[in-house]
Amino acid sequence: MVKMMSEAALPGRIDAAAYLSTWAKRVEGELDRLVPESSEPPEIFEIMRYSLFAGGKRLRPVLCVAGCEAVGGNPEFILPAACALECIHSYSLIHDDLPAMDDDDLRRGVLTNHKVYGEAAAILAGDGLQALAFELMANERMGAKVSPERHVKAIRMVADAAGATGMVGGQLLDIRANGRVSDVTHLEEIHRRKTGALLRVSVCLGGLLGGGDEAQITALHVYGEKIGLAFQIVDDILDVEGDEALMGKPIGSDEGLNKATYPALYGMEKSKRLARSTCEEALQALEIFPKNAPELESLAHFIILRRF
Amino acid sequence: MVKMMSEAALPGRIDAAAYLSTWAKRVEGELDRLVPESSEPPEIFEIMRYSLFAGGKRLRPVLCVAGCEAVGGNPEFILPAACALECIHSYSLIHDDLPAMDDDDLRRGVLTNHKVYGEAAAILAGDGLQALAFELMANERMGAKVSPERHVKAIRMVADAAGATGMVGGQLLDIRANGRVSDVTHLEEIHRRKTGALLRVSVCLGGLLGGGDEAQITALHVYGEKIGLAFQIVDDILDVEGDEALMGKPIGSDEGLNKATYPALYGMEKSKRLARSTCEEALQALEIFPKNAPELESLAHFIILRRF
Repeated sequence: MVKMMSEAALPGRIDAAAYLSTWAKRVEGELDRLVPESSEPPEIFEIMRYSLFAGGKRLRPVLCVAGCEAVGGNPEFILPAACALECIHSYSLIHDDLPAMDDDDLRRGVLTNHKVYGEAAAILAGDGLQALAFELMANERMGAKVSPERHVKAIRMVADAAGATGMVGGQLLDIRANGRVSDVTHLEEIHRRKTGALLRVSVCLGGLLGGGDEAQITALHVYGEKIGLAFQIVDDILDVEGDEALMGKPIGSDEGLNKATYPALYGMEKSKRLARSTCEEALQALEIFPKNAPELESLAHFIILRRF
Repeated sequence: MVKMMSEAALPGRIDAAAYLSTWAKRVEGELDRLVPESSEPPEIFEIMRYSLFAGGKRLRPVLCVAGCEAVGGNPEFILPAACALECIHSYSLIHDDLPAMDDDDLRRGVLTNHKVYGEAAAILAGDGLQALAFELMANERMGAKVSPERHVKAIRMVADAAGATGMVGGQLLDIRANGRVSDVTHLEEIHRRKTGALLRVSVCLGGLLGGGDEAQITALHVYGEKIGLAFQIVDDILDVEGDEALMGKPIGSDEGLNKATYPALYGMEKSKRLARSTCEEALQALEIFPKNAPELESLAHFIILRRF
């Protein structure tokens, strides 16, 4: 942890590791306050909380916080929206892990929701977390700090990113592709919807609720889109490099070519160049902000560039 | 159909059957316009539309329309909200039918969603319909006709009714009870959450978005709650009377006592009295409206009193 923090603390930048961990804790505290253990009826909330508090970087809420700071907003006022993003992310993981989907027994080293509570309860806990996300989005105290027009628009934006044109539609495309994609356009469509949409909306949401103007929201949109794409490319790179180190499997083997990853489609070197140039595009989008929105800039370095 | 309509057309009342069928068609037309076949990506929308357009009385949207008329609002302005209620109802049926839940192959005489598209797709279609519901709730054109404060409050109300404290939590209570409830308090809690919450909010939503004042919304809340309860009691009565006619099974048999129904807990006569008195309470709540809100009054007669 100390090493990561010193790596992130480049001259002139925010300490991204400390920023992530500080706001992650703040978001967790707020989630615990908004969805307390004492909520009724007890069992469904216990099952929802099991996954909601099972760890995770809280990247989406923190991107939302940083988007809010980029436009000069106060993130304390929009924490319910940041929490809502985590509820959506958490529900999507519960449903993705189900036997009918990826059939995973473990996540982050602990039993998946359905392994502990059963499939029916896990489906319902996911459903409940999605409803909770929109309840938090429509939070009354947040409404007192945000213009109601922006508030409604923010809810529409999140619903769009989480739904059939975004995350849910992308997950179905991914299942149907079954690890085999025809070309990079197909691969990009899957990622843009499945993981990209929610990451992108996280940044924009902070900017919108923080009071940003149209040009600023557009810049945050570009940043969020590029960061989401770069994040995926890096994940693919690390998967392959992990594999290589572990098993000595050559890059670009025939088996590799059928895998729906950037290194399989582009090769490793081109994938790394693409990740870097995509991240640079994200950083360029920040140029309209005072000091280039140092929080978002540092997060881009921390979650993308330092990883390979 | 002709017989039903003449039964409903009592003196001084709206023709409830015609009202239901007219607005059901209007809601379906609006759903088809808001979620067209051409939506992208195609497959997820095809799967969502399969269940969304698989029939049904559209009771929740029509209750919303009638709630809006009770307070003098124009239902045409709030149709996206009425459609949102149907999306939530439809998603809950898809998930309830899953093998991990009720494991049903047929609904309304056609194959259930997962029997046609597979479990993974059915889970995702349900998830997508819930997100769509909140996208419709945050509809921009509706926002132009409703005060933004009411708009946000309406979204919060629907999320609350659909989520862990309402429908989703009630479904888990029902699964855990597994047809055996300890007493009528337990039975009522299950129904109040599982089916009651969304029925109640349907009426209130129309009143809130239609511009109703606090006293009117409270009256609609009481009406919705009582209608939901009476609806459930009548369903239980018809289940048993259907059984009796079919199998000659005596009411209140030992087997019957373990079933989580009103006739099993109260006996048939007391259940019928309770359904009637509960419906009367719903009608009393309408007394603060001009002409006692004839649409809601007629719907109560049509969906409850004429059925037994």
